[in-house]
This record gives sequence, structure tokens and C-alpha cells, in this order.
Amino acid sequence: MKLLEDKIKQEGKVLEGGILKVDGFLNHRLDTALIAELGADVAREFAASGANLILTVEASGISLAYATGLKMGLPVLVAKKHKSLNISDGVYTAPVFSFTHKTENVVLVSREYLSAEHKVLIVDDFLASGNAAIGLLSLVEQAGASCVGFVAAIEKSEQGGRTRIAEKGVKVYSLARIKELRAGDIKFE
Amino acid sequence: MKLLEDKIKQEGKVLEGGILKVDGFLNHRLDTALIAELGADVAREFAASGANLILTVEASGISLAYATGLKMGLPVLVAKKHKSLNISDGVYTAPVFSFTHKTENVVLVSREYLSAEHKVLIVDDFLASGNAAIGLLSLVEQAGASCVGFVAAIEKSEQGGRTRIAEKGVKVYSLARIKELRAGDIKFE
Repeated sequence: MKLLEDKIKQEGKVLEGGILKVDGFLNHRLDTALIAELGADVAREFAASGANLILTVEASGISLAYATGLKMGLPVLVAKKHKSLNISDGVYTAPVFSFTHKTENVVLVSREYLSAEHKVLIVDDFLASGNAAIGLLSLVEQAGASCVGFVAAIEKSEQGGRTRIAEKGVKVYSLARIKELRAGDIKFE
Repeated sequence: MKLLEDKIKQEGKVLEGGILKVDGFLNHRLDTALIAELGADVAREFAASGANLILTVEASGISLAYATGLKMGLPVLVAKKHKSLNISDGVYTAPVFSFTHKTENVVLVSREYLSAEHKVLIVDDFLASGNAAIGLLSLVEQAGASCVGFVAAIEKSEQGGRTRIAEKGVKVYSLARIKELRAGDIKFE
């Protein structure tokens, strides 16, 4: 999506270790009009998908998931992140290893809000190695729900997340696919 | 606001220790259409405030802050929560004691995105004792910015947060003000 690619080129910063900083419009400071456009694009792409629930994970996936859900007339389920598996009953949980922070977290949702009748569209800010996506897909599977697609605002292609998700038969849709990430030189697919 | 009060009466659950659970529409599962209505109400209330930035804190403040910012044509700055003060330069930080979790966290924002020219509208999901609000106000003060108001979706009046914020000369606006909280009997101001 050209709008997002241009914004990344203009304002994205490449840090050491292949980290793309988009704090100025997507994560820390939110460009609300831009995110609404991204949500509208996702809503168009999945208009015929039959999705009846958006799933995301706190915190940086929430704004795009909300924008998408609002446009599609759907609720958003926000998976919570915890440090350990020591959690009450009544929830589905899955481990997620964070590439950025080098720590393992647990993502969880209440069983009350995810069940077999749900057709879930997962929305997150980044797709890199796909660890968060696989964790969220596990929650969907545990509930006996189905997944109609995985959406990332920004995909870092070379880290292989797309293949891991596609192997599960889930459609992957990214608004910007980054092929090469170097300071001053960001290449898109 | 009647729309939100009705929703709380219908779907809110009162837990032990005076905790109001609104997981089904405001926190965990987001009722996107309802939250858009709440954001539109806040935007009307502060239309003439001169606000040029919305400030909230992750994770459960994000959706209402985004809805408000989108309606007002403003960006949203999302303060991050950390466990300790051991954080890099380039940020403003303030301690916040969590009533629900009985722990002290730190909230922080990048100095890059908050400065003296900002007129800040703070938006959060809850106002109880006001600890989070005071922490966020401290970030605004440290930056030399001004605060045009504090908004909570739900206020628990008896915990005194409103007075603490008003004492700093900041207008407080809540979409639902709870006077008494008992299972099966929620009274509004």
C-alpha cells in the first residue's frame, strides 16, 4: 500500500539489529487518519471473508485492529500479554517469544469471547518471524474457531513469518512488505 | 452519557473489592461502534478546547483515545508502562501505583513527541483514585505542555480521583460516573 510505504520511507528509522522504528505514526505516536486508511484497506480486502471477529494483541496492535473492526462493523478481541503461565482458569493461553525483547511471554484471551462459531481475522502491527501470529493462531485453534486471515501493517519478509502462517492454510495480507532494511535504504517487495 | 450507563447496567459485572468488570465491551472485547460513539461525545465536549494532542496509556486506554483523536483530527500519544525506572534517556517518566494490581509501574513517553507547544487532552478508560491521571499529568508538566482536560470512560466517584485532578486546575469529564457499586445495583451520579 503506497500510502504506508511512503510514510515508512519518510519517517521510519532503521536501528541496529534490523529494527524498524515507526514510533512516530504507528506505535508510540498514532497518526489516527493514516491508521483509519489502513483499517479501511484491510476492511476492503476481507469484505467477503465472512469474518465475525477481529483478534489482536496488546498494545501496539490495538489501533489498527480497532480501525479495521469499526469499518467492518465487528468487535475486536484484545489478547493480553503476561509474563508467566500462572493464570486463572477460563482463558486460552499460548507462549510467544519476542524477537525485539528476547523474552518469552504468554498471550491469553477469555474463553467467554472466543468460540467455535467465530471466523477470526487476526490484525497486528508487525509480521517478522511470525511468533506472535503463531501464538494468536493457537488461541483460535484451541477455541475451535477458524481463521480467515492474518493482517500486518508492516511485514519484514526475510524473517520468514509469512511462510509459517501460510503453512497453516491462513491467508497473509500485509500493508507494506519490506524486502531490505538498511538505514537510508528501505526496499519493498 | 446514557448509552454507556445502559451498557454498564446490562453487561458490567461487579467483582469483590469494588472492581467493575467491563471486559465484554471496553477492555478485553471492544464494542467498536460503542467506543466510536464515546469518542464522538468527547470530541464534541472538547471541540473548542484548542487541544492538539491526545495522550493515553497502554493498553486499555488506546481504543477510546484513538476514537477521540480520529474524530478530532488529532494524533494520539500512547504512554508506555514499564516495571522499573531503569530506562534510556530521551523520555519523560512518572511513577503510577496500580489500585487493581497493587504494584507500582512507570509510565513514559518519548520527549520527541511531547513538548511545550502541546495542548493535551488526556483520555483513559477508568478514573478511580486518579493515580494514572496524576502520572500522565506529570509527563505533561515535565514537557512544559498544558492540559486542557482529563477524560475517563468510567469514573468511580467515591475513590476521589476527580478532586485530585481538579485541584491541578484540569477539567474532568467522565462518560459514566458511578456513585455506588454493588452486584446487581450500580448507581450513577
